[in-house]
Amino acid sequence: MPSASPGATTGALALGVDVGGTKVLGRAVRADGTELAAVRRPTPRGADAIVAVVAEVLDALGSAVAPEVPDAVGVGIAGLVDRSGVLRFAPNLPGVVDLDLVAALGGATGPVSVLNDATAALWGEHRMGAAAGARDAVLVTLGTGIGGGLLSEGRLVLGRSGMAGEPGHMLVDPAGPPCPCGRRGCWERFASGAGLARLARDAAEAGRAPAVVDAAGGDLAAIRGEHVTATAAAGDPGSLAVLHQFAWWVAVGIANLVDVCDPEVVVIGGGLSEAGELLLAPVRAAFAELVLGTGHRPPPRLELAALGTAAAATGAGLWALDTGFGAANGAH
Amino acid sequence: MPSASPGATTGALALGVDVGGTKVLGRAVRADGTELAAVRRPTPRGADAIVAVVAEVLDALGSAVAPEVPDAVGVGIAGLVDRSGVLRFAPNLPGVVDLDLVAALGGATGPVSVLNDATAALWGEHRMGAAAGARDAVLVTLGTGIGGGLLSEGRLVLGRSGMAGEPGHMLVDPAGPPCPCGRRGCWERFASGAGLARLARDAAEAGRAPAVVDAAGGDLAAIRGEHVTATAAAGDPGSLAVLHQFAWWVAVGIANLVDVCDPEVVVIGGGLSEAGELLLAPVRAAFAELVLGTGHRPPPRLELAALGTAAAATGAGLWALDTGFGAANGAH
Repeated sequence: MPSASPGATTGALALGVDVGGTKVLGRAVRADGTELAAVRRPTPRGADAIVAVVAEVLDALGSAVAPEVPDAVGVGIAGLVDRSGVLRFAPNLPGVVDLDLVAALGGATGPVSVLNDATAALWGEHRMGAAAGARDAVLVTLGTGIGGGLLSEGRLVLGRSGMAGEPGHMLVDPAGPPCPCGRRGCWERFASGAGLARLARDAAEAGRAPAVVDAAGGDLAAIRGEHVTATAAAGDPGSLAVLHQFAWWVAVGIANLVDVCDPEVVVIGGGLSEAGELLLAPVRAAFAELVLGTGHRPPPRLELAALGTAAAATGAGLWALDTGFGAANGAH
Repeated sequence: MPSASPGATTGALALGVDVGGTKVLGRAVRADGTELAAVRRPTPRGADAIVAVVAEVLDALGSAVAPEVPDAVGVGIAGLVDRSGVLRFAPNLPGVVDLDLVAALGGATGPVSVLNDATAALWGEHRMGAAAGARDAVLVTLGTGIGGGLLSEGRLVLGRSGMAGEPGHMLVDPAGPPCPCGRRGCWERFASGAGLARLARDAAEAGRAPAVVDAAGGDLAAIRGEHVTATAAAGDPGSLAVLHQFAWWVAVGIANLVDVCDPEVVVIGGGLSEAGELLLAPVRAAFAELVLGTGHRPPPRLELAALGTAAAATGAGLWALDTGFGAANGAH
């Protein structure tokens, strides 16, 4: 068997699948991160359909690497995943609650480890991305919502129920806008794509963001985060002002996380990180004013995610490999 | 030597010292927490005087347990302590910056481990207090300021520089009052003793807390947190209203920490925890409304610190013992 051949440790093979709100991405990777195959599908609606697509993606990856047999299989999924691998709550996967993906896959693929997608992404970035070499790290994904992952002394911080690293609902403004979670002033209301769009709409209503309104086809209700980042990239002053305001809010939550976790590096991923230095430079500037202990410890590095959209699939696969989710290891 | 006798593991002896803003408390404890001796001194001003008092406390404890020789020595100190044991910044110890306590003690006591005091308190509570048996835990101390400690899978989360677990300066209200740290709206402005006094003064100015004003001798500027807890304990409605408002702010920060860390238990220590259930009951009620994932995971327990004022000294000593700070182990 290839998996038992000399060099199996560095050459070990993992399948990793990232189940997000819009796409399911599968990757077959070596322990060193080399990609052997990748498969992408749109995320269907409903638990049964999602299970079927994950099975199909694993099947396609398995065929692509045959006759070699994967040493481990891992899934990262958007939502609160408990320590037995059950997805308990998934605001971005409508109708999916208490999904036991491991049981639902029916054992055909052997044991499967399941993690929260952002936690998986942090493991990927730690193994071979922006957090490589750091023993203490934090990752935040800024997209439709906000996800997170924590690393302490080289170990994932999973929490009692596996649900650690959910900074999106930290309260940062008791007078802030209502959140779908039922509270108000959650960090996600400000520092996500939805938050950026809201800041831009407020600016547009005050006549301070005409270029954003144009980019949205003249319809204020149609304004999305991308309209801001695109017009800011083109140098529009109104858009840049909105982006700087947004960067302050991003920095607020990161500073809170740094006060709590004291990481060496904070990795910023998710769709909004595609704005790159345009966003990161003002976040760094605002962060320097907000974090505790400046001058008494080396400041953490703020870095863009290096693995991009492949981080969660890569991390899910490597985590499964690193924690022994092969053969007869049983569920984590 | 007693320390090499059979049973030395469970009977091992540690000296622990807690250096706080007002007192230095030393304890000689067995590995099971049994106290053999305790010494208490007021905290003097200035680094040299503090070092001298710590040396004196260790000396007194050493004499008390002689001829037995301690197996380990640990110190918990109020401030940001780096991973080499140097106290980098100590807002409650005026004039003390970059104090290398281990070097200053001159090696007379052998290797000494040094931790932040709240982190040490968490270790004490984990070993034999309110967090016993919990592998994932958070401790917050609510006193003049706010301290904190984190435990993940039975290990302290220290962070890259040893400064993890400082939740007091999480920003929770951008419109909040200025903080001595230079920012505004830090959690400590609301949920510390100073925060309780401020809420009470605001209520008193609006004529809503006459009993608190009486307790403070009629002087609004003299109102302290104790005046609120004492009059609330006596059933005064105005004081209870202030305490409930305060409890909401306490719960905000705890909910933020739970979103990030997902602990099994949150231990509440510090001077304000002496208010007991009077404070804890409204904190629990507010917390239930604020935390993410309710219904999808077991809620963390909110508990009062069990070791009281002895937690940090006990934890500092046991941590030194547990991490091998005896004989020729060298600094951590």
